[in-house]
Order: sequence, then structure tokens, then C-alpha cells
Amino acid sequence: MFFSHHQLNELPERYRVNLINALSGFKSANLVATSSKSGELNIALFSSVFHVGANPALMGMLSRPHSVPRHTLENILETGDYTINSVSEDMLAQAHLCSARSDRSESEFSLSHLDAHIIKGFSAPAIAQSPLQIGLRLKETIPIQTNDTVLIIGEVQHIFVPDEALHSDGFIDHGVMRSLTISGLDAYHSTTSLGRLPYAKKSQTLGEILGNMKK
Amino acid sequence: MFFSHHQLNELPERYRVNLINALSGFKSANLVATSSKSGELNIALFSSVFHVGANPALMGMLSRPHSVPRHTLENILETGDYTINSVSEDMLAQAHLCSARSDRSESEFSLSHLDAHIIKGFSAPAIAQSPLQIGLRLKETIPIQTNDTVLIIGEVQHIFVPDEALHSDGFIDHGVMRSLTISGLDAYHSTTSLGRLPYAKKSQTLGEILGNMKK
Repeated sequence: MFFSHHQLNELPERYRVNLINALSGFKSANLVATSSKSGELNIALFSSVFHVGANPALMGMLSRPHSVPRHTLENILETGDYTINSVSEDMLAQAHLCSARSDRSESEFSLSHLDAHIIKGFSAPAIAQSPLQIGLRLKETIPIQTNDTVLIIGEVQHIFVPDEALHSDGFIDHGVMRSLTISGLDAYHSTTSLGRLPYAKKSQTLGEILGNMKK
Repeated sequence: MFFSHHQLNELPERYRVNLINALSGFKSANLVATSSKSGELNIALFSSVFHVGANPALMGMLSRPHSVPRHTLENILETGDYTINSVSEDMLAQAHLCSARSDRSESEFSLSHLDAHIIKGFSAPAIAQSPLQIGLRLKETIPIQTNDTVLIIGEVQHIFVPDEALHSDGFIDHGVMRSLTISGLDAYHSTTSLGRLPYAKKSQTLGEILGNMKK
């Protein structure tokens, strides 16, 4: 099937949203937890968290102003702190429930039966059920002019990672944690490891590359 | 295992790179293809392509100035056009080879035995072997001050998608295309669909959410 620019513009809204959301491929599944200054806790499901840089350790995520109330962004701007928590297969229903619309006074912690993991001196709660819990401090908010979204960049402050998922070279095994991946707006997937590949050299044949795969 | 901010700063460089790159979870696997003004073709493997918005249809990706020569960014700035091509399991070795360092005059098309799919009136080649081929035009480049990376935002101009992967509501099934997902710097994974979930309502129980899953 081919869609031209003109055809894309003529698509029914819902069809277009499903199509365009699926273009990039697989996305990360993370719960972002925050607290307002007055202590109201919030969780939101984000599929847009991505790696920005390792030194300094930076992560980015997109916030859409119009589609949902921006409790997460408001809280981050108020306190500067937030946590990113990976979603494992066991947490699928709870994570999905965190994407439901709710008032600011209703915490997704109670709606979704998730427990707050409070870290001393850090104002955002982590999610106790999440295997990988990352504390971040806001570094930059960058407006994307073209569609009025905001890119939130934070610096990693601390990390909780299960011993059994941490390899000796620092790699975190999301397979061991049974982390989910999302495609499109609403599709969830588990994963199967194919292996890790050493740094590629242009002199290698395709067979040599696959032969070097570490399972 | 717990890493404090101080401990993160003390980690050996390679360990730190592996750890921080794995934090966000699963990433998309895409080949970005471009042409220079003088017609030199380039392919680079990106794990940072993400959805920005559906209307207008926007996709983003990060370019790191220091780690690799920026042939992709240079070509995009020269011509305005680029293609994003999903990586299927069959293309794993070829995609990985596209991450090898090479001179601008050496095309990854010949190094990796990939074929250019040329679209009339569009200066960037697509990758014939890729099931999902997306043509984009540069919309904005946004500098991320904190670590000197560049966010490239493009608007979708056209899409080739296999009929068998396109659902009646516009959803693209990456499982059918056997798209890969990446974690960390170098780990590749296939996926298994758990299903799609209808829009969540806060009144639902966790059991009701899972009961509504469309397999």
C-alpha cells in the first residue's frame, strides 16, 4: 500500500492517528511518577522515553499539551524531580490504567494499586513494583514549534536495577526484567533476545557479523 | 543494585555507556537513508527514531555530533529529504553493518548489499529490502544544549507499507513485518504480540482491562 502526502492528509482522523503512531516501530514502555508541591502523587504511561546521552546521563520524553491534562509536566516544572519506571509484563494492566484520564486529586497509585517507593531527599516517588527505577532531575524543556509539544530532558540522579538483570559490562537485560514494548497507540509486546553484536567493521561480511553474535 | 549520582559519575566510561544506553528500555530499529547533493548515497542505523505527532505527521530522531561523522545530518541539511526504513529480522546483519564507520564516498548500499528504491521527485533513496519505507522532509532541527546533540524533526511525505501488515483501522503490525527492537547499544530482539488494549477508563478493574485485550 502506498500513501502519498495528499492521501495522508485526507485520511479519517482515527485511521491517521493509528497509522502515524505506528511508523517509528517499537517504543519503550515506562511509567513516569511525580509529586506536586503539595504532595499529590501522579503516574502517567509514556511510550516516548528515549536515550539522549551517557555523559552526562540524559533521558528525554515528549509531553503533548492538548491531548491529556499535563499533570506530569506541571509537577516536573514545580519540583524538578521525576522518576522513570520500566513496565514489566506483570504490570501491563496497571500501566494501561495509568493512561486513563483522571483528576489531579486522584492518584494513579491508588487507582492502579501501585506502591510508592519514596527516596529520602528526592521529591518524586518511584514505583515499587517496577524492576528498574530511575530518578531524574529536570535539565531542559525544549518546545517543538511545529506541533506545540514539549521535549523534557532530565539528568539521571540515581538508579535501582535488579542484580540479576545487570551484566558485568553495565548492560541492563530487559528480557530478564520482562520489560514490555509498545507499538502504535495501544499494542503491547514481549520480546525475545536475538543476542548482542560487537561493534561493526566495514570489512566484515554479513556472515561474520552474525557469527560474532553473543547469545 | 543501587547507583547514586556520585557512583554514576565514577563508573568506567564503557560500563557507563552500556548502563545509561539501556535505561529507557526497548528502542525502534530504523535505517535512515539519504543522498548528498552530488548523489552519494548513505545509510545509517538509528535507534532513536520516535513519534512526535500525527497531525501534522511528524517523526523525530537524535543525531550525535561527536560519536560518528554526521553524513546523515549533512545530507538532510543539504537536500531536506530523507527516508526512515524499518529493520526486519532478515536485515539484522545488513543493518548492523550500516553502523560501521565508513568514508562519505563509500555507500552503505554497496557495503551492506541493500538496494535503493528511488522515488521520482524525492531526492532520498528508500531501502528496497525494508518492509516499511517512509519519506520525510526536514521541518526543524533543534539543538539540545545540554550535550550538543541535534534533534531532527521531519514531516512524513509518503509511506510504503505491506498490505498484510496494515489493519483496517490504520494500525501497522510490526509483528507481521518481523521488525526488530534494540536495547542498550548492541542488543537485538524479536517481539511477540500480547494484544491491543482499548482506551482505558479509570472505573475499570485490572481484570476488566486484560479481559478487553484484542489478541
